[in-house]
Amino acid sequence: MQSLGLDVGGANTKAVLLKDGEMQKHWLKYLPLWKDKKALDYFLNVLAKSARPNVVGATLTGELCDVFSSRREGVVEIVEAVCNAFGDEICLFMSLDGTLLTRDQSLTSLQKLAAANWVASTLVVGKKYPNCLFIDVGSTTTDIIPVRRGKPVSIGHTDLQRLRTSELVYMGVLRTPLPCICSEVSLSKEKIGVAAENFAIAADIYRVLGMIKERDYTCETPDGGEKNRKGCMQRIARIFCSDVEEIGEEQILEAAKIFHDEQTNHVAGALKKVMRLHKLPRSTKIVMAGLGRRILAEKAARAAGFNETIDLAAIYGEEAALMTPAFSAGLLATGAFEHGCRD
Amino acid sequence: MQSLGLDVGGANTKAVLLKDGEMQKHWLKYLPLWKDKKALDYFLNVLAKSARPNVVGATLTGELCDVFSSRREGVVEIVEAVCNAFGDEICLFMSLDGTLLTRDQSLTSLQKLAAANWVASTLVVGKKYPNCLFIDVGSTTTDIIPVRRGKPVSIGHTDLQRLRTSELVYMGVLRTPLPCICSEVSLSKEKIGVAAENFAIAADIYRVLGMIKERDYTCETPDGGEKNRKGCMQRIARIFCSDVEEIGEEQILEAAKIFHDEQTNHVAGALKKVMRLHKLPRSTKIVMAGLGRRILAEKAARAAGFNETIDLAAIYGEEAALMTPAFSAGLLATGAFEHGCRD
Repeated sequence: MQSLGLDVGGANTKAVLLKDGEMQKHWLKYLPLWKDKKALDYFLNVLAKSARPNVVGATLTGELCDVFSSRREGVVEIVEAVCNAFGDEICLFMSLDGTLLTRDQSLTSLQKLAAANWVASTLVVGKKYPNCLFIDVGSTTTDIIPVRRGKPVSIGHTDLQRLRTSELVYMGVLRTPLPCICSEVSLSKEKIGVAAENFAIAADIYRVLGMIKERDYTCETPDGGEKNRKGCMQRIARIFCSDVEEIGEEQILEAAKIFHDEQTNHVAGALKKVMRLHKLPRSTKIVMAGLGRRILAEKAARAAGFNETIDLAAIYGEEAALMTPAFSAGLLATGAFEHGCRD
Repeated sequence: MQSLGLDVGGANTKAVLLKDGEMQKHWLKYLPLWKDKKALDYFLNVLAKSARPNVVGATLTGELCDVFSSRREGVVEIVEAVCNAFGDEICLFMSLDGTLLTRDQSLTSLQKLAAANWVASTLVVGKKYPNCLFIDVGSTTTDIIPVRRGKPVSIGHTDLQRLRTSELVYMGVLRTPLPCICSEVSLSKEKIGVAAENFAIAADIYRVLGMIKERDYTCETPDGGEKNRKGCMQRIARIFCSDVEEIGEEQILEAAKIFHDEQTNHVAGALKKVMRLHKLPRSTKIVMAGLGRRILAEKAARAAGFNETIDLAAIYGEEAALMTPAFSAGLLATGAFEHGCRD
């Protein structure tokens, strides 16, 4: 019994192949839909041939991508792409109410499918930790979802509602442009404005701070340049309309630390808001996933006053922690299949 | 005596043809250097053939563009592009100390050439208003330059220094991504996070607020979509991970107003900082240029406590106010030529 979990995002598509619930293989593919929607079809077809799954569990967020004029249109296109590659009969799609839907069910309840990746993750996390606060800090966004009796109990359901409750923070550790983190920083105790351009991103600060490796920098660089220390330094200098020669490495490092602190404060603020809305005690277990779990989630959880953090990698392994929605969708699809929802 | 003023920016190149100091023609060309550097060569060559100037005065900011690995490299490439199109012997480049340099002089003092567009503008503004505070709110950036005895007396000279003093605010009324203006807004009295993506820009808010016309939206839309009200609404909805259908037009307008207010506060804050640094009295005349002079500069000046604002369009005409650095470089080049700095 082979199941494939898919997480189709706007920038990255992740796939996980499970055999009897154990991870066999995984793929993390940078597939920016706004540049080339056909690349997704191609990737899914290659995957269908090489992985040969018995069942596919998919979750999507790519419909928000601005190549689609509405999220409905995006959902339809992605559902069709997945079904065309693997065949209607084996594809299941994660819905916001926690059930897996067939192609036909999906196309009649499009709104339920939009951005349901966090539902898949929390249902799986909830099996091990029925009462916890799940936080997944990815390349682009951060999900903060309270889990009770094994189920997600977030107040918001759609992205819009979740942005209001801070259960979704649209900020991550790779793709976030630095001027979206803060518009000015204090360098050598003096405030300085930041260029409102996509000159440098969060990945650049975490690289120069030594918190991520070059292979973790899975998105493109804003300038098409190198992902090494020098390239990242150049990009950070550019947000001050400068270059490394003029501003100097010391001030670049100082700036990187400030952006990191600001991101931590931002996520800690969101955690506090969720804590307040759900009346969570400080003793609530924080279960952390995503590339930013150690570098951002952990610090933010401490700053928000939580005492206990659990790394999802310790339970399901590093790769499952890095692509929890895909892993979870695959795992849930196996269960749905085995429990005879399809025959 | 025909002189051509050029302002080569990273996103837009502006050109103004003057005859005996009077504007004859003007060009505003969206030429994003990060996409295609050759398009600049092509445009300059077409211009050389159609305008046939006796002298060219150029000012540059495009060197900051991230296709260039350093600003020095950018300055060299742009200087060469201008000289190749018009011929070395008639080209003059604006330097940070207010003099016009030949090609050879330019290439030996590259740092003096970077981002000197505001110097050209203030020298011309200073002829009419020898003591004033000049503010030019463009598509991408805002310059705030005190002028005394007809000369710019800014404390900062390079962009980096000017970001520190707030004499440069890297924010404008068209190209600025909305999450760079603020990372959360209060909609219906409830705080909501903004997606840290280039889904919508300042031009979108000023369009839906009716403050700019479609023809003023001279840059690309982030999604390649329409510049009409509907397209702008869609993009603003997208920064809340939503669409017009879900969030509704009323909340989009509310959000647009908040972004406008935030930009106003930001520029007003910068004006106050410049006011403090230069000990400027409230009676200082504010001379305003750029597309944002009426919609942003004027409000910000009032908010900062200044009483008298002067629209540069009233003196030199609408087009000169919209492309003051190019107009000014052309005018100064005429003067330099007539005063025999070249023969």
